[in-house]
Amino acid sequence: MDIHAALDWRYAVREFSPEQLNTQAVETLLDAVRKSASSYGLQPYKVIMIESAAVRRDLLPHAFGQQKVVDCSHLIVFATDTRIGDQTVDRYVNQCMKVREIPYQDIAGYAGHMKQALASKSRTEKREWAHQQAYIGLGTLLTTAAVLEIDSCPMTGIDSRAFDQVLGLAHHELETSAIVALGRRSAGDRSAGLPKVRFDYDDFVIRI
Amino acid sequence: MDIHAALDWRYAVREFSPEQLNTQAVETLLDAVRKSASSYGLQPYKVIMIESAAVRRDLLPHAFGQQKVVDCSHLIVFATDTRIGDQTVDRYVNQCMKVREIPYQDIAGYAGHMKQALASKSRTEKREWAHQQAYIGLGTLLTTAAVLEIDSCPMTGIDSRAFDQVLGLAHHELETSAIVALGRRSAGDRSAGLPKVRFDYDDFVIRI
Repeated sequence: MDIHAALDWRYAVREFSPEQLNTQAVETLLDAVRKSASSYGLQPYKVIMIESAAVRRDLLPHAFGQQKVVDCSHLIVFATDTRIGDQTVDRYVNQCMKVREIPYQDIAGYAGHMKQALASKSRTEKREWAHQQAYIGLGTLLTTAAVLEIDSCPMTGIDSRAFDQVLGLAHHELETSAIVALGRRSAGDRSAGLPKVRFDYDDFVIRI
Repeated sequence: MDIHAALDWRYAVREFSPEQLNTQAVETLLDAVRKSASSYGLQPYKVIMIESAAVRRDLLPHAFGQQKVVDCSHLIVFATDTRIGDQTVDRYVNQCMKVREIPYQDIAGYAGHMKQALASKSRTEKREWAHQQAYIGLGTLLTTAAVLEIDSCPMTGIDSRAFDQVLGLAHHELETSAIVALGRRSAGDRSAGLPKVRFDYDDFVIRI
């Protein structure tokens, strides 16, 4: 599907059909998120695939009863690193040395620059920065899902702290950013047929 | 280009060629951002196309001398609303009534719910929420640009407050979130040929 047709086709699905997505298609989608851009490439977040039906039921009340948490084919949580600092950079540097087959001295200067950039942020700014990177990933996921004709519904109006607790995220030094339900739209979802509400182009783009 | 080929092709361009992008292609790209998802569809941000060469030169020192601010074909600023509240919802409600041709009473309940949800956030949370929506748009832009084979470089390491001043954003009740340079990669950009550094799939996806 052409990218604009895909974006027009996409909407926040209210009601999913019971159809299960092909697992391979979902993995391909998550791999697209893995490839998405992030500040310095540091990608300080993970995607969590909630496979356990019991855990999904435990999460339901913390998503204010949005039934799709249980009913969708696949439920994904974007979870952001709570510890941002030198180790965020070291993790990237190690991967860079591995992928590019370079010695540490080739990246030492850049590593120092990244560490300094992170160290200059306040704790709040670091947290904000990390969540923003996850939101780039969310944008990548929703766009890619549309191109692959996978239906989705992002949900941010959830009790994130309760999600953290149910999922034991503190143990992973992570916290919930947003969740996304994936699947196939139900034929009975009347919101699929409604015109998409977007601001007019001239009201969205400013020229300077 | 297939979505994964596009994401593999994409990288943060270091050096752009002098080639100008087709204006129509850029407008199509921005229109894709306009269609991207946001919380409740409220999309509390704008994209600013910096067409003035003089303004670009004024911005350069606040992007820590990253020459592509001046050299790229098109420079885009994501700018987020600084006033989040009832009027954010009213703007959406008006557009919804127009696009869906419905009377106010059909959406009054939902409008109240959205207003309540925003009002329950602290000032900091509102700001964080608004910037996060812009970052979803940024993810949409980078993914769509790759699919359309437009080169890009997102830049977040800028002096956002200085950008706000140069662009007079306070007047629009906006503040800078991130900027993106668009164009064609220079044949001399050696970083184009480097393997992409990403964490391994199993290190990025957690299953629960």
